[in-house]
Amino acid sequence: MSSSIDVGGQVRWNDQGLVPVVVQQWDSLEVLMLAWMDEEALRRTLTTGRAVYWSRSRQSYWRKGDTSGHVQQVRGARLDCDGDTVLLQVDQVGVACHTGTRTCFDSIDLHPFVDPAAVMPGEEAS
Amino acid sequence: MSSSIDVGGQVRWNDQGLVPVVVQQWDSLEVLMLAWMDEEALRRTLTTGRAVYWSRSRQSYWRKGDTSGHVQQVRGARLDCDGDTVLLQVDQVGVACHTGTRTCFDSIDLHPFVDPAAVMPGEEAS
Repeated sequence: MSSSIDVGGQVRWNDQGLVPVVVQQWDSLEVLMLAWMDEEALRRTLTTGRAVYWSRSRQSYWRKGDTSGHVQQVRGARLDCDGDTVLLQVDQVGVACHTGTRTCFDSIDLHPFVDPAAVMPGEEAS
Repeated sequence: MSSSIDVGGQVRWNDQGLVPVVVQQWDSLEVLMLAWMDEEALRRTLTTGRAVYWSRSRQSYWRKGDTSGHVQQVRGARLDCDGDTVLLQVDQVGVACHTGTRTCFDSIDLHPFVDPAAVMPGEEAS
């Protein structure tokens, strides 16, 4: 009988054994970043209260904040309907992005066309 | 001189030519789903005001809502610091998930350990 918790049994891992993780600030609901986990990173994240990822570039585990101090305390974790994406809600200490911005999505705007007909009267299509 | 808009020039596509897209309701900030785009899907999304994805299972383009009526009107689009993830803000008509729930993350709770020491006094660690 194994003493390990079966945290990954419901997850559909990709062909590299990874799953994408959307990381969201639990109270403001900002999307902070997207990262990747293998089964061990998910197990550590779900059992320790700290977010742990798999770094694809460094090919190693990466407990968020160990170097930067920008720790992520886990507040919730959900799996999507297909079992192939995790939504991790955290309390982010300091900034999430290694560039120094609060989220990893703060710098590059893709400037989409926003259909004025789809915007409610009185609203601004920013 | 090409008349096409260079929407994909900043994106780092994966080895299948795809990028993951985090889809968020623009006003409530709920994370609705994660989907994938190739360069053409991103171009259609950014230029038409409607979210268009690449279906990896069906190997075809998929304009959200064409079958279900659950259209996504584009409100914003950002690229992350590494250029390998898109955050798409939309106005979701009806439900986002094909299972009938508002988001694709409504059904499966992974029940993480939440460190009580990391929760502010008076807050509940849900």
